[in-house]
Amino acid sequence: MAKGLLIVLSGPSGVGKGTVGNALRKRLPELTYSVSATTRQPRQGEENGVNYFFRTREQFLEMIEKDELLEYAEYVGNYYGTPRDFVEQTLEQGKDIFLEIEVQGALKVKEKFPEGIFIFLLPPSLDELKDRIRGRGTETQATIDHRMSVAVDEMNLMQHYDYAVVNDEIDLACKRIESIIIAEHCKIR
Amino acid sequence: MAKGLLIVLSGPSGVGKGTVGNALRKRLPELTYSVSATTRQPRQGEENGVNYFFRTREQFLEMIEKDELLEYAEYVGNYYGTPRDFVEQTLEQGKDIFLEIEVQGALKVKEKFPEGIFIFLLPPSLDELKDRIRGRGTETQATIDHRMSVAVDEMNLMQHYDYAVVNDEIDLACKRIESIIIAEHCKIR
Repeated sequence: MAKGLLIVLSGPSGVGKGTVGNALRKRLPELTYSVSATTRQPRQGEENGVNYFFRTREQFLEMIEKDELLEYAEYVGNYYGTPRDFVEQTLEQGKDIFLEIEVQGALKVKEKFPEGIFIFLLPPSLDELKDRIRGRGTETQATIDHRMSVAVDEMNLMQHYDYAVVNDEIDLACKRIESIIIAEHCKIR
Repeated sequence: MAKGLLIVLSGPSGVGKGTVGNALRKRLPELTYSVSATTRQPRQGEENGVNYFFRTREQFLEMIEKDELLEYAEYVGNYYGTPRDFVEQTLEQGKDIFLEIEVQGALKVKEKFPEGIFIFLLPPSLDELKDRIRGRGTETQATIDHRMSVAVDEMNLMQHYDYAVVNDEIDLACKRIESIIIAEHCKIR
């Protein structure tokens, strides 16, 4: 049986990965989506094993220790990571698996799965990205400047990806991602 | 301005290239379709410059002489070929151009445009292809056997292509081709 495809969606902070990822879940319910592990507390309505695998800090550190995570990062005091087992089992079953993760994490996954399909989500323009980062809330100018500089650094990592998808409209971005998956299945290797 | 993509659809005799090509014209009317030159007589309703460029044998031989054709072949006593000018002009304008041609011709085009996207249309199975070749009309067993052997030889050339699209249902085949075009436009080169 042919192995499934590992599909990674990433892109700079503020580009709308989460929104596109959620829209894709509705558009392509037959695709298997990786569930991240995290040490943060479940929010109202979040289910263990569905939205996240909720783990204690101790459990998470043990997962790191045992190399059970394809990638992980600490963000605002909490750990987030991609459990390796679920990804590998899904691929072995001949099914595709979709990961929506940060740019640095995606490059870590690429070291382990160079044959994966790496999609970089782009803002329509840098100005648009700035607006989105600013639009998030009530951050200070210094915070906005810092986030913007991180985002620009992340943009420079696009060269390591296979595809660039512009997030001008969510539906269009989803259609492009779906097209990439269909095309990759037609590829003669 | 970015150049357009050269997209070539080919596949063994009897696989349904023409049917899929025609369905694609309806589905993607914004795509530019290459118009072949031919020495055969126009059929009822066919227009010069739309269905074909109708040429005399003398004119066609002059086009060959002047290297004005990307590929050509003789079939049942008539010449068919792809005028180079129209293809190159379309690409220069930044527009994609679509060619639906025979397997041997496609490989000739690949020599001139290695950066083109070469799509091989596959029958769902060899038995299905045999049925389609047989189903064409009232050919003798010897003719059917010959066509089948040509088709099998053509199938072996699939390795030189970028994508394989199964023609199980015309709509699905068209969707796959459309997906390949969208994905290729997202590719980071």
